[in-house]
Amino acid sequence: MNHKIILAYDGTSFWGWQEALGGPSIEGTLRQVLEQIYQEPIVLQAASRTDRGVHAEGQVVNYHTQQSKDLNRLKISLNQMLPEAIRVLALTEEESTFHPTLDVRGKEYHYLVSTAKVQSPFERYFAWHYYLPLDLDKMTQAAEYFKGTHDFTAFCNRIEPLPKNPVRTVERLEIFQEGDRLRFEIVGNHFLYKMVRNIVGTLVYVGAGKLSLQAARDLVATKDRTQGGITAPAHGLVLKRVLYNSSGG
Amino acid sequence: MNHKIILAYDGTSFWGWQEALGGPSIEGTLRQVLEQIYQEPIVLQAASRTDRGVHAEGQVVNYHTQQSKDLNRLKISLNQMLPEAIRVLALTEEESTFHPTLDVRGKEYHYLVSTAKVQSPFERYFAWHYYLPLDLDKMTQAAEYFKGTHDFTAFCNRIEPLPKNPVRTVERLEIFQEGDRLRFEIVGNHFLYKMVRNIVGTLVYVGAGKLSLQAARDLVATKDRTQGGITAPAHGLVLKRVLYNSSGG
Repeated sequence: MNHKIILAYDGTSFWGWQEALGGPSIEGTLRQVLEQIYQEPIVLQAASRTDRGVHAEGQVVNYHTQQSKDLNRLKISLNQMLPEAIRVLALTEEESTFHPTLDVRGKEYHYLVSTAKVQSPFERYFAWHYYLPLDLDKMTQAAEYFKGTHDFTAFCNRIEPLPKNPVRTVERLEIFQEGDRLRFEIVGNHFLYKMVRNIVGTLVYVGAGKLSLQAARDLVATKDRTQGGITAPAHGLVLKRVLYNSSGG
Repeated sequence: MNHKIILAYDGTSFWGWQEALGGPSIEGTLRQVLEQIYQEPIVLQAASRTDRGVHAEGQVVNYHTQQSKDLNRLKISLNQMLPEAIRVLALTEEESTFHPTLDVRGKEYHYLVSTAKVQSPFERYFAWHYYLPLDLDKMTQAAEYFKGTHDFTAFCNRIEPLPKNPVRTVERLEIFQEGDRLRFEIVGNHFLYKMVRNIVGTLVYVGAGKLSLQAARDLVATKDRTQGGITAPAHGLVLKRVLYNSSGG
């Protein structure tokens, strides 16, 4: 049986999705609980390998097993055994062909920036506190340059080797002001490594006047990561949902 | 000089406002930072001695000192030296007569209940997750019984001795539904020990059908704490603001 899990997690205390040396991971924590239940090795696959400190409200995960269980009870058991920072929102059986990264139409990420003079203590793990005033109009203008299909090399943190094809499509990129918070909403697929956080960091630099609109417009063409803004910190980022083509389950 | 601080804190990791044996307190943490800055003993007074795990968005604190400092710089220093769970939102000089508990017109508390089937991991320290469905109409009806001026003995957790005068006034008590969350807003003054959490716990019991409307209506008259609902857990409660008479600074 192929099981799909919709997972939410507060990534604050985890070293990201992927099992890692040195710290607890979402994958490792969930795998261990599933293996305790099934008493067999479980292999997890996820739609997005979120980085250390990044959160999720709609991560999609799957695993295969021969054992049949009551799904409702299983979900309750999982939530009882998992730390409260990780919650199974939904658990379903899918076609054997379903895979979390196949037939993905897009992934929606939200990024929260707090512009309060003093950041609320309740936001400290969920919003990047940025001290300088930000010009929303300029940021909205710059966001236009990053929508659509481009070679996003300038937004990819160096990993060796660079992906062969660094062309990606940003379907949607919007910025909403909510009191003293800015919420960046971005939808795309197969983002490059840290691309979302580099887009946010670059837009924030534009908003703060550290990067001109002209420089932002030319940034894609430079293919040079050092020309943009900093990588926005992980804790402001949340994987909101994964969108599948109708055939994708 | 008499200094007033408006303080916000995430109470999760603290043993309440008051300095206590065995664990870190808001008062102790703030006092130590102030004493490091002033290099003299500092005595803090607060409008509300919030319990362990209770949060604040608008706690009011004062302290006296002979030393004069630039208030803006002092505020920045405090926020740099304090843990991020505690934030100084405002720091002002007041008349020497100002005292956080004097001339208080009321205190506003909010209490959050999550009725989601699976609680969001982001709410786990800020909302009481209640599994049973809650009838908002019944709760709103029962809330009417607890408004106004009553002997609230039935809502006071036993402390010896009971206050001589257990008559209190609940000025405002409203319940708002926001998605799968219920927000209780309550304004009153000099609440009895755990009175707010006992009112919320009792209303939740009414909403869940564990306590009849009739029993809720008669509860005040029983003066019996054991007849009401449980004490709602601390982590759903936040001290929103302290309201002063105009003369109170």
